[in-house]
Amino acid sequence: MADVGLYGLAVMGQNFALNMASKGFSVSVCNRSPGKVDTTVQRAVDEGNLPLKGYKQPEEFVKSLAKPRKIVLLVMAGKPVDATIELLSQYMEAGDVLIDGGNEWFPNSLRRAETLAPKGIMFMGMGISGGEEGARNGPSLMPGGPREAYDLIEPIITKAAAQVDDGPCTTYVGPIGAGNYVKMVHNGIEYGDMQLIAEAYEILKTCAGLNNDELAAVFMDWNRTELASYLIEITALIFAKRDDVTSEGYVVDKVLDKTGMKGTGRWTIQEAAERNVPATTMAAALDARYLSGRKEERVAASAVLEGPKEIPSIDRAQIISDCKEALYCSKIVSYAQGMNLIREASDQFDWKVDLAECARIWKGGCIIRAGFLDRIRAAYARNVELPNLLVDPDFAGELNSKQASWRRIVSLCVASGIACPAFSASLGYFDSYRKARLPANLTQAQRDFFGGHTYERIDREGWFHCAWTASHKDIGDATQRTAGELSSKGHEKEK
Amino acid sequence: MADVGLYGLAVMGQNFALNMASKGFSVSVCNRSPGKVDTTVQRAVDEGNLPLKGYKQPEEFVKSLAKPRKIVLLVMAGKPVDATIELLSQYMEAGDVLIDGGNEWFPNSLRRAETLAPKGIMFMGMGISGGEEGARNGPSLMPGGPREAYDLIEPIITKAAAQVDDGPCTTYVGPIGAGNYVKMVHNGIEYGDMQLIAEAYEILKTCAGLNNDELAAVFMDWNRTELASYLIEITALIFAKRDDVTSEGYVVDKVLDKTGMKGTGRWTIQEAAERNVPATTMAAALDARYLSGRKEERVAASAVLEGPKEIPSIDRAQIISDCKEALYCSKIVSYAQGMNLIREASDQFDWKVDLAECARIWKGGCIIRAGFLDRIRAAYARNVELPNLLVDPDFAGELNSKQASWRRIVSLCVASGIACPAFSASLGYFDSYRKARLPANLTQAQRDFFGGHTYERIDREGWFHCAWTASHKDIGDATQRTAGELSSKGHEKEK
Repeated sequence: MADVGLYGLAVMGQNFALNMASKGFSVSVCNRSPGKVDTTVQRAVDEGNLPLKGYKQPEEFVKSLAKPRKIVLLVMAGKPVDATIELLSQYMEAGDVLIDGGNEWFPNSLRRAETLAPKGIMFMGMGISGGEEGARNGPSLMPGGPREAYDLIEPIITKAAAQVDDGPCTTYVGPIGAGNYVKMVHNGIEYGDMQLIAEAYEILKTCAGLNNDELAAVFMDWNRTELASYLIEITALIFAKRDDVTSEGYVVDKVLDKTGMKGTGRWTIQEAAERNVPATTMAAALDARYLSGRKEERVAASAVLEGPKEIPSIDRAQIISDCKEALYCSKIVSYAQGMNLIREASDQFDWKVDLAECARIWKGGCIIRAGFLDRIRAAYARNVELPNLLVDPDFAGELNSKQASWRRIVSLCVASGIACPAFSASLGYFDSYRKARLPANLTQAQRDFFGGHTYERIDREGWFHCAWTASHKDIGDATQRTAGELSSKGHEKEK
Repeated sequence: MADVGLYGLAVMGQNFALNMASKGFSVSVCNRSPGKVDTTVQRAVDEGNLPLKGYKQPEEFVKSLAKPRKIVLLVMAGKPVDATIELLSQYMEAGDVLIDGGNEWFPNSLRRAETLAPKGIMFMGMGISGGEEGARNGPSLMPGGPREAYDLIEPIITKAAAQVDDGPCTTYVGPIGAGNYVKMVHNGIEYGDMQLIAEAYEILKTCAGLNNDELAAVFMDWNRTELASYLIEITALIFAKRDDVTSEGYVVDKVLDKTGMKGTGRWTIQEAAERNVPATTMAAALDARYLSGRKEERVAASAVLEGPKEIPSIDRAQIISDCKEALYCSKIVSYAQGMNLIREASDQFDWKVDLAECARIWKGGCIIRAGFLDRIRAAYARNVELPNLLVDPDFAGELNSKQASWRRIVSLCVASGIACPAFSASLGYFDSYRKARLPANLTQAQRDFFGGHTYERIDREGWFHCAWTASHKDIGDATQRTAGELSSKGHEKEK
């Protein structure tokens, strides 16, 4: 009987099955269309006679597994997952475990866990990051579900995951939904990182006049600093790559400036809004993708809308050095936002997610893997109550000392007519978060003026309403009115 | 028999009932708790023996109305609306009209219309803006629902609405859901306007050193320019208002800098993300509210995180003049985003919303009423296909000529350590939208590198995948792979 099953043999599924088999676990595989079963079996042979067997009938597939059965699903998120669960669960028994490895909207996992509960089948949602290469050689795995189910799959996933200095890139993230959520935020952070790099590219290219070889060299250099990360590394490789289609010039210059997306970045922003968590950097990154998509409109607008008449001239070594600091500071802010979003959801759903562990399991295997994640891990390990990464003494010290560079870069962009939405949004977050007093007093005063929403005061307790003008009638007991508003569920979307 | 009924006699309901009665329509009113019925009836007497009758039994209330009956609901959005519909609809008949006047999440209205359809009761969702003062004297009304139902209520609402130079501030917005949607975006724009004003306040106070009387004078002055609007006007009044609690100083200085919210701003951002519409200014405004709410964290952070060491010194007249232009340019961008969001939803749901009409009905009654809405109306009236307000010749000309001021203000904030998230986000949108080429080519190259997502080229048709490194295997027919990804519904949330 096999140790584990994998259903769904597209690129991720094939590679993850071969990964588990290469760690010595016997793996059964199955797929809706049988051709990919043969392909996967052949790859298992080719890659060293790995212990993997193919099945074309779901029932045989399920029955080939040792009990309690453990089946990883890697099918398209959404309805295909429901269909597969329905298909396989009819052959499964109480005590078996189904693990969805897709990028799933977390409430779907909660719903599925409830559906399977009466049958005693334990359901997990496990985020997997690392693309096909990571799936094959060691991804970052973010499993959420019953602790009992996790204990059953732990021996397998701790071996299949990427291995870094302090262990495998997986952990028990939390109950059902928590794994999907952490993966979603991972992807939101990935959007932020990619946009920050794109802005650095634009600045270095336009303001400092770097060509692709020079850009490659700068990013290669940055990859030996506190910016060391997978995304910085591949960016260097991308700049250096000659065009393989025309054999002239560089690929990056031939790529159309329209960025695709698959949904998790969008969800991160919608969730941040839902949970009252400011996520300015990731929101800017999402909007940058949307703006990139409006290519035809932009081309038309470029003929109508002008930029600044005079562009400042700055020493290019200064720009390169400032840009590095700006990128790093912005990245700290972006990760702070992502971590806060995980914490907020964890608190609201009582998931008890360990933020230090999140940072640790992202150190290897996944797209956002980076040297500096170990410092984030350490920050939360030092202080589990840390309200924000920005106030960790180490990060605060860096932000305080590097901010002059950060401000020079944003100013340079503003003066040069170059958009740096994620750099700016990160700096705006920093400059808001560090203020004991913001101009929000005016906003609340306006709300009280036109809507009688009342206000709190800095000098005494309670809620107050001002008779701003003669036509503002007394609205009675302000405290009661506001308490009513605050306790109201009326303005929440219904489920 | 009465012309129209109003159920729900909280502040908005009372005032809107009295408004309709004061226009000569006979109004029946009812409420869950009977005390407010008496209050409303008494107000009708006090305000000039208006034709208004109170009912304490829902059945009597419904039966007091002339057929086809028209009932406006003004109860708390969400479940209370469902309960009220269930209560009243049992006494209603085919051909009657129920109009929900609350700030409702638009899919709820779609669902309710479907529920009522078998009974032949026509359902409308009508956004109402203007607060209690507007409700009493003339609000902006945004009704969506069956045309036939609209025709029945048109005589009443065109009289109840605010009246401006080119007519009443109401129109047939579109089918069910469209009215709620337009109201939602109105509120998102309101968030943007309020945040932009808050940023101007912070700049004028901190960088230019203006006191409250001077701020009042500046805003009063601005209210005689292209910035003329209700929010600018009340801001001037707010600055001038002396504290009525301690009798010392000004109210605005006593108000705690934590901004409340009720949900529609949040929905606007979530919807913008859902429909791929960049809404950078409104997103920044929402996040600013969230950041304002973290007051205790900010106070703690202010002791740890530093600002810039040197702050530039600029002539105060220059700051005041630049700030006005920055506010105006940012406002154009914010409205452009809101209009685009309405258009996108309208296209996706086939609502056929007229953007010129939206701008027109916001000219009076509502919180965002402003002189410049007539210019927006004119822009869309000139060109219904206008892809973006920014490329309307008039607005483009202003943006082109005023941008130097805008850039100076954002730079001043960046250098001074003052957050101006909405000014910055607006400028970033402008500087992205006017670019024929953005650095999104790098982002897409990264996606192809780590995820095999393929890319389009600037020099030929089709989808391509690059073998970026030796370990990048050929992924076969790139076009087919991408087409599969694009057509996939897998990453959409399920309903």
